[in-house]
Amino acid sequence: MDRVEDTVVRASFASDNTAPATPEVMEALVVANRGPQPAYGKDEITARLERRFADLFEHEVAVFPVATGTAANALALSACTTPWGLIYCHRLAHVHEHEAGAPEFYSGGARLVALDGPDGKLALAALQQELDAAGFGVVHESQPQAVTITQASEAGTLYRIEEIKAIADLVHARGMKLHMDGARFANAAAALGVAPADLTWRAGVDIISFGATKNGALAAEAVIAFDPALGLSLAFRRKRAGHLLSKQRYASAQLEAGLIDGRWLAWARHANAMAARLAQGLTALGCASLDFPVEANEIFVRLPEKVLAGLEADGFAFHRRPAPNQQLIRLVTSWNSATEGIDGFLARAQHHAR
Amino acid sequence: MDRVEDTVVRASFASDNTAPATPEVMEALVVANRGPQPAYGKDEITARLERRFADLFEHEVAVFPVATGTAANALALSACTTPWGLIYCHRLAHVHEHEAGAPEFYSGGARLVALDGPDGKLALAALQQELDAAGFGVVHESQPQAVTITQASEAGTLYRIEEIKAIADLVHARGMKLHMDGARFANAAAALGVAPADLTWRAGVDIISFGATKNGALAAEAVIAFDPALGLSLAFRRKRAGHLLSKQRYASAQLEAGLIDGRWLAWARHANAMAARLAQGLTALGCASLDFPVEANEIFVRLPEKVLAGLEADGFAFHRRPAPNQQLIRLVTSWNSATEGIDGFLARAQHHAR
Amino acid sequence: MDRVEDTVVRASFASDNTAPATPEVMEALVVANRGPQPAYGKDEITARLERRFADLFEHEVAVFPVATGTAANALALSACTTPWGLIYCHRLAHVHEHEAGAPEFYSGGARLVALDGPDGKLALAALQQELDAAGFGVVHESQPQAVTITQASEAGTLYRIEEIKAIADLVHARGMKLHMDGARFANAAAALGVAPADLTWRAGVDIISFGATKNGALAAEAVIAFDPALGLSLAFRRKRAGHLLSKQRYASAQLEAGLIDGRWLAWARHANAMAARLAQGLTALGCASLDFPVEANEIFVRLPEKVLAGLEADGFAFHRRPAPNQQLIRLVTSWNSATEGIDGFLARAQHHAR
Amino acid sequence: MDRVEDTVVRASFASDNTAPATPEVMEALVVANRGPQPAYGKDEITARLERRFADLFEHEVAVFPVATGTAANALALSACTTPWGLIYCHRLAHVHEHEAGAPEFYSGGARLVALDGPDGKLALAALQQELDAAGFGVVHESQPQAVTITQASEAGTLYRIEEIKAIADLVHARGMKLHMDGARFANAAAALGVAPADLTWRAGVDIISFGATKNGALAAEAVIAFDPALGLSLAFRRKRAGHLLSKQRYASAQLEAGLIDGRWLAWARHANAMAARLAQGLTALGCASLDFPVEANEIFVRLPEKVLAGLEADGFAFHRRPAPNQQLIRLVTSWNSATEGIDGFLARAQHHAR
Repeated sequence: MDRVEDTVVRASFASDNTAPATPEVMEALVVANRGPQPAYGKDEITARLERRFADLFEHEVAVFPVATGTAANALALSACTTPWGLIYCHRLAHVHEHEAGAPEFYSGGARLVALDGPDGKLALAALQQELDAAGFGVVHESQPQAVTITQASEAGTLYRIEEIKAIADLVHARGMKLHMDGARFANAAAALGVAPADLTWRAGVDIISFGATKNGALAAEAVIAFDPALGLSLAFRRKRAGHLLSKQRYASAQLEAGLIDGRWLAWARHANAMAARLAQGLTALGCASLDFPVEANEIFVRLPEKVLAGLEADGFAFHRRPAPNQQLIRLVTSWNSATEGIDGFLARAQHHAR
Repeated sequence: MDRVEDTVVRASFASDNTAPATPEVMEALVVANRGPQPAYGKDEITARLERRFADLFEHEVAVFPVATGTAANALALSACTTPWGLIYCHRLAHVHEHEAGAPEFYSGGARLVALDGPDGKLALAALQQELDAAGFGVVHESQPQAVTITQASEAGTLYRIEEIKAIADLVHARGMKLHMDGARFANAAAALGVAPADLTWRAGVDIISFGATKNGALAAEAVIAFDPALGLSLAFRRKRAGHLLSKQRYASAQLEAGLIDGRWLAWARHANAMAARLAQGLTALGCASLDFPVEANEIFVRLPEKVLAGLEADGFAFHRRPAPNQQLIRLVTSWNSATEGIDGFLARAQHHAR
Repeated sequence: MDRVEDTVVRASFASDNTAPATPEVMEALVVANRGPQPAYGKDEITARLERRFADLFEHEVAVFPVATGTAANALALSACTTPWGLIYCHRLAHVHEHEAGAPEFYSGGARLVALDGPDGKLALAALQQELDAAGFGVVHESQPQAVTITQASEAGTLYRIEEIKAIADLVHARGMKLHMDGARFANAAAALGVAPADLTWRAGVDIISFGATKNGALAAEAVIAFDPALGLSLAFRRKRAGHLLSKQRYASAQLEAGLIDGRWLAWARHANAMAARLAQGLTALGCASLDFPVEANEIFVRLPEKVLAGLEADGFAFHRRPAPNQQLIRLVTSWNSATEGIDGFLARAQHHAR
Repeated sequence: MDRVEDTVVRASFASDNTAPATPEVMEALVVANRGPQPAYGKDEITARLERRFADLFEHEVAVFPVATGTAANALALSACTTPWGLIYCHRLAHVHEHEAGAPEFYSGGARLVALDGPDGKLALAALQQELDAAGFGVVHESQPQAVTITQASEAGTLYRIEEIKAIADLVHARGMKLHMDGARFANAAAALGVAPADLTWRAGVDIISFGATKNGALAAEAVIAFDPALGLSLAFRRKRAGHLLSKQRYASAQLEAGLIDGRWLAWARHANAMAARLAQGLTALGCASLDFPVEANEIFVRLPEKVLAGLEADGFAFHRRPAPNQQLIRLVTSWNSATEGIDGFLARAQHHAR
């Protein structure tokens, strides 16, 4: 162990879920706690939140705060499909890979159809081909009813407005609904620098899971329906799933804290900048290979084993992919990633790569 | 409007869900937020919580923090039954009256059988009669598999240890499981002054929904399985229901804050004492009629319309029952009910009753 | 054992499900088997059946043949409700007592609310009281969505047209749907002597399970939707439940065999007449007590133990109710109950009663 | 139209579901109809059937007759998996392509994982690769629990005993269950000429859907569990799915008719022979291309458009695949395919190919 190490900040790049909550979110909880408030979302914070979301999206919205992204996705998709529906997604989608069957549970048995596409994004051609081959109206086959895209994607890449529009046009032409998993919607909106409305309903998104937990909250997500018809059943679906919080004001307060003065975008912008700095440094190493373009706050990079082993011994936290891809790691930055942490990681990587 | 009114604290007796969180819970959140922590319950707070629950219950336990009581109940019951099961409960049980079909959803279609019983408690004789008539093993009939009791009950009353034991013996003799909805378990344990173990597994309870939200937390409950076999599927059930919190440490911190130095019992003891003071004062009015004995922190009382209307005009918050029982109201006290609020309410009630 | 016994026909009154199929149904199978036919209901027999049902009911209908009454009921109810729905039925209803949770399974978790009512029939007042107390639109409660009545009822009694209309008016006024379990609809229509249309859609029935198995078929029932909106999902629901028969022509042929020349009514009329003869004879015994008026083909009668034991020893087949009602038996007649069987039973009963 | 056409038998190769029932099956129905029999499978025909199946498979079995293959498959798979399970199958499997979500419905939301493999058969290597990458025990992922193979496959090909054993060994080593969709098990057993036991439990199959409808019955399939543990829940699962036939004796009679004197194998052997004759003739045409080896009673062949159009104009029935594969057709033979039909088809094909 050499001297440099002692002064390095041992940053965690394991997940934006390991980061703490922002001071503004914590302060909002303190404020929300000042006195009694009506239960089950009848409170004034929730009322304000609904207006803020309508303003943010420049559209009438139905807002359903919940505690997890898995719940948000499963609820949203269940409102878009029957139990005999087909839901198309990218093979890497969180709903497909890491929600343990929640979409199937909430929908009563709808089936996910996992499609390939470069850079972790659903490919329009692949979707079109699949829909062309689908048995719409054929009683022997599950029925195509929804498509879900993840923004930012699970590969840390972004759908451009035109890409979303093209998918939405195809989806709507077949009478289906378009859902957006926005667990990292903030990172996407911050990176693309366009209005949330342009990235969602104006591009054809019918319903979104709006994430806050990964972006500075403790536990707060929201299903936001732009299509009023989709909102009708969601109040009942949420309650019977045990996701109507009795003291919902605390979840609403977390969400609201981000919406004030565009903080949610500032937090995400910082995370994105830290990822860019990290990616730049990794590229400069000469021995690193990026799997995807770095467009938001996630980096998928392959490094020599000795570098990885060294960084692990140093105490940095990150996830390796399972064998045989254990040299591929995911690095995630967050609102509180520090320049020192990034630079310390890079310095040690350079050290190990020598 | 007279002079007395000006100095009255306009207390809310609408629900223990309207009360804020305790300072200790808020402080625990601040501490939990000091740095990064592993996601999905791999954090050290959760690890400590599990040990504290094992100590509290003097038994090995499987602990599953979730955000709502409805989720806790539905998850616990789903682990006790097949989709063709029967779950027996009191007619007033929260799972039957106010969970919008969550037990059916989580269990995949099990049926609740609502039974009557005095003072909001499941009557042993009624349960026995029902089980005697049930078609155990008959393929044409749903199968008896679980019983759920609520402690404290929805009527604000308490099951004594012997009552729980008698039900448990009957339940286990038929090969069924016993669940306890402990949304207000703290109030029960504080009022009865017995060990949590005596009120649960030692009396035959297989699994409990341990509530904290109504007792000073923001949003934190826990499914606690005493029967290890029941815990096996719960990790998967919780995840696919969207109730595995990515930043679970914050829920664990809320629960832990209560378990330190017996605070959870102190908070509940205060709530119970306030309910007793309120009940005593109401009885002294001469015009009030209690529907049930007041044993925990809930009061069901009938008052003359002029008294109710007066209290409402004063600004006190409480719930009337639906017609034709609109003169029956529910008053709930909490950890932060103040003596002044109780006395102010009673003074105004006396004023209106004149 | 005395001499009379030797010549007695040992009739079975256990169930109309124990009776064989009619010669006409068997002949229809032979005819249907004469050559290849398109699969999955695209055959000409099914096409004819649909026209015959439309003629019979004087209404456009969507017809879905299935193999069992449980499937017909569960499919029909699932089209009338969401997973968080409430379905009101009589406490004795087959869907409540003898379908092992099929309605819950098919609906994705809807709840049956069992109501009392004299003579096995849903009482309008009880239904109205229940609906008045229901939390329509309240997110914490399951939502009232359907009512199901059984015609002829499980008590062997009949709803008159005005009774159905009164229930239907109440049901429709609350935005709900009315289903009729017509496992013994033939017996009802034959006994009441009114047009099938008058007993169903003209009285407000939205969807019916039309039974044939108990009335001379091998295995053939049909879900018949009068409300076209209810039919839309049923094709998919039936297929994914495994109830779309690949060689559906054979089920259609069984159903069609009954619809030719009013045979279905003739078969049921015979069964009803045999039940009437049996009831008359039992009453004449002096020691028998009927639980319900005998209006169709079922009799619920209490007899002295020595009579019951004697009849059982004689070899007659019938079902006793479970303890403590084991002296209450159900006697069911069918299209092939013979006068000799009835009279033999009565003679032996008289013998044992001496 | 030329002269030859007038004497050609216009055979149907659309499906073995379009074929009539065998005389022996029809006769069995007549015999079963001779008098009253206990309902719900308590009859003597069902009792005999269970013994015959035990004899046939040389193993204790739990037998559950049902009306459709979709029901048999969905029931069997539901007994092998939890709602959060993964079920691996070939991409062409009937459960994946043509059951409209029945496996998801019956299992409560388990997910099918469709794998590729040559000749319509699940490839061991593909399965192994998938299982190696699966997250056994990882709470964020659906859990691998069952594999289903189709014998004969949807491509009309056969798994050899060693192939089944290899899959079964892999499956059991991971604690999973192996299901066989035997809708055309008769064709497989007849073609391979080995004992049913060798093709099933001795090779590691835990449960089979045993088909009869495509092999001469009207509507009769059976779930047969070799693993007694799998049979435990099936009685309840079947009933609540509406697949317990009240007059089950008629389904049992159809199944039994095939088991007498090895008829089921004789019928299938004939169908196989007709397919072989047809394949041989097609190959001789010179312009035909087979997609898969013809091993049972299904042929997938590509023919010039003029030949296909000519045969369609002649009135032969067969299915084209959807665009862009509309020149690929499926030809299915059955127990009653006639040599004249085969030869007539071939003669006309030759005529059109000129």
